[in-house]
Amino acid sequence: METVDTLVCARWVVPVEGDIPVLEDHAVAVRSGRIVALLPTAAARTRYVADEIVERPHHVLLPGFVNAHTHAATTLLRGRAENQPVDTWLEDTIWPIERRWVDPEYVRDGTELAIAEMLRGGVTCFADAHPWPDVVARAAAELHMRASVGLAAVGAPTPWAAGLDECIEKGLALHDEYRGDPLVGTHFAPAASHALDDASLRRIRRLADELEIPVATRLHESAGEIERSQSLHGLRPLERLARLDMLSPLLVAVHMTQAEPAELDALAAAGAAVVHCPQSNLKLGAGICPAASMLARGIRVGLGTDSAAANNDLDVLSEMHTAALLAAGIPGRPGTLVATDVLRMATLEGARVLGLGDCTGSLVPGKWADLCCLDLRKPGSWPVHDVPATLVYASSSRQVTDTWVAGRHVLADGTLRYIDETAVLERADAWRARIDAGDGRSNA
Amino acid sequence: METVDTLVCARWVVPVEGDIPVLEDHAVAVRSGRIVALLPTAAARTRYVADEIVERPHHVLLPGFVNAHTHAATTLLRGRAENQPVDTWLEDTIWPIERRWVDPEYVRDGTELAIAEMLRGGVTCFADAHPWPDVVARAAAELHMRASVGLAAVGAPTPWAAGLDECIEKGLALHDEYRGDPLVGTHFAPAASHALDDASLRRIRRLADELEIPVATRLHESAGEIERSQSLHGLRPLERLARLDMLSPLLVAVHMTQAEPAELDALAAAGAAVVHCPQSNLKLGAGICPAASMLARGIRVGLGTDSAAANNDLDVLSEMHTAALLAAGIPGRPGTLVATDVLRMATLEGARVLGLGDCTGSLVPGKWADLCCLDLRKPGSWPVHDVPATLVYASSSRQVTDTWVAGRHVLADGTLRYIDETAVLERADAWRARIDAGDGRSNA
Repeated sequence: METVDTLVCARWVVPVEGDIPVLEDHAVAVRSGRIVALLPTAAARTRYVADEIVERPHHVLLPGFVNAHTHAATTLLRGRAENQPVDTWLEDTIWPIERRWVDPEYVRDGTELAIAEMLRGGVTCFADAHPWPDVVARAAAELHMRASVGLAAVGAPTPWAAGLDECIEKGLALHDEYRGDPLVGTHFAPAASHALDDASLRRIRRLADELEIPVATRLHESAGEIERSQSLHGLRPLERLARLDMLSPLLVAVHMTQAEPAELDALAAAGAAVVHCPQSNLKLGAGICPAASMLARGIRVGLGTDSAAANNDLDVLSEMHTAALLAAGIPGRPGTLVATDVLRMATLEGARVLGLGDCTGSLVPGKWADLCCLDLRKPGSWPVHDVPATLVYASSSRQVTDTWVAGRHVLADGTLRYIDETAVLERADAWRARIDAGDGRSNA
Repeated sequence: METVDTLVCARWVVPVEGDIPVLEDHAVAVRSGRIVALLPTAAARTRYVADEIVERPHHVLLPGFVNAHTHAATTLLRGRAENQPVDTWLEDTIWPIERRWVDPEYVRDGTELAIAEMLRGGVTCFADAHPWPDVVARAAAELHMRASVGLAAVGAPTPWAAGLDECIEKGLALHDEYRGDPLVGTHFAPAASHALDDASLRRIRRLADELEIPVATRLHESAGEIERSQSLHGLRPLERLARLDMLSPLLVAVHMTQAEPAELDALAAAGAAVVHCPQSNLKLGAGICPAASMLARGIRVGLGTDSAAANNDLDVLSEMHTAALLAAGIPGRPGTLVATDVLRMATLEGARVLGLGDCTGSLVPGKWADLCCLDLRKPGSWPVHDVPATLVYASSSRQVTDTWVAGRHVLADGTLRYIDETAVLERADAWRARIDAGDGRSNA
């Protein structure tokens, strides 16, 4: 008998990789934070002695979801700016609120709320973009959440950095601080390429290549963004990045709702990746990312919630639902993306987009044990004729009972083990009251 | 002090009717199953002596949702027929399964599961269409759920009725049986108008006028349906119904994803109603109902989940989310339908579509106390800057803690009071196993 730390036994297991989409009565064995085996439960019980056995008899166990694009701290603004198109929403409403209120304490409180929400929703990894990335990194590390923290790169002065030089300097220091950390990594996160000059973009590209970290930036989010780039630079944003030699496997093009076929071909040829944020794009009227056409070209496509101020939550399971409905409904062609395709986008593809495909996103021995588990024995999800379809179309993130990050049982049978949830909720409501009072509003 | 049965006190109340969309710290007083007052909690405590006081300090209280179109018993086929376009999905997959398996026991077990799901999701009223409507009516009455039961009207013989004559005969008997019932009413439910001849449709129209009950039928669900009507009758379905004088306030046109502007004008002029089933229509690739254009013309538009075999659940809150995202995202115009519009569709408009606008759908004294309550103090819904936006975009039916139908507390702090939920789930799984075994499938 071999010794392991944990054996998680579930009615169904969705490994995401391999030939069989759903395994029945299987177990995942975990040792030192990593998956050591995925095998039938009966065999697992004879092969392993486990410190802890977790039995989930009506549940599906799968890789934790990867939220491949968000701005975690914006949870504090959930519902604060409704019914506006993307450009005015951002520039006339969100930025002024943020200029007034955002400081390290705000970022900490908002990010902790976001991590509580995501762990409850089975998300085990998120890619962030927000000022004070050091605060985001610390919150992730302390609360045992995997994160790729965005090194903000903004030309204009902000309370966090006086300009691009200081952004880069602080970003590189942060990258060094977390080098080799098992949970927290970094990527460059220029807010919008059109707002940076050619030299700045080239500099970011050079540094990203040296450090081998991604550059994630919103790209072709809306028609307005493209017009602005054309008026400032005479080029569509993707065309400009191509001329700056930025189309590479390290580029993560977030949104891409506006894409000519030749642009998709260019992304595919360069090996660049995309993050599809369906709910944010719909709600802000930005457009719809042609995710199926991208996947058909071999482009890595992950799913992102974008900002909770936009969409209004960090619920990857709900984004899967929307992505699947759009893929069938917009072309009027069911089966364009099937449930297993969407599950893969929300897990392994998201990990691959962030350069983490070797360490998370599927249930393969050697990867970190980043897992989540949903109870399907609920009237709205039962009976289960088809596990992936039930997950995508008939379950809710609120059915997630357990989440493990690197083998650590962070959500255990509905309880967050390492977060003082009451305190997090109270601090969030205090921010809500402060911001509303500052604007003379109530929340009714 | 006046005596009432129940006082429900909530942090927020959304009455749906009246000038103020959200009231803070208000209470609903209930006597003999009806709302007697909606007033500030402090005032309620001095005015009323209540047998029971229900305090919901982080919750929003609102009218129960109305699922204006479903086929409840199809919960047993949830996930059984994926990735098919609407016509082949129905005719090549669902109908053959139903011909083999559907009997009164199947209808009872599937409908009970559906009612458990809907009450857990805050739905207090559903419009159904399924063979054995007598079984559906009995299940609704026994489990204390409001229903408008569809009197199936099919020309072809089924195990339930040998043809239209028997459908009508059984339907009229059922209508008589429940005449005056406080919970269960009826409507005619011809499955598809193109499958009935002119005389049959005229007969249904005459009977509906006499009984003053709606005629709900799928109409312009897909391009294929329109083509079939044109080839069989030389007319688009709506045009044919107009010639048969069926466009009236009693007509409920379900789906309407294919609609010319002149057809919308005709529906509006006739005072006919529409049910928007966004998830079913997307998933089956049928199209998208132009709900905002309809509401702008004064057409009553409710929300329906359609069949759980299609979409794959009976989650009206999730349909609201999809309807709101589509209304902003498809035209690229946020604010086309705001959160309060969508909430109204899911409650009062749905009731009005079914002819029940005077008795349910909003929190008005004299109406039945059909209520639901959601706990918003969860990381994914908190903080609350905007109650309607949080409901529509950042909450889940799984946050519904309480549901009342005609004042009866059917879901009480997360527990279904009048349903043996374990038995319902077990019977559903037995059907799943039987159907899968019959087809040589497993559910993995």
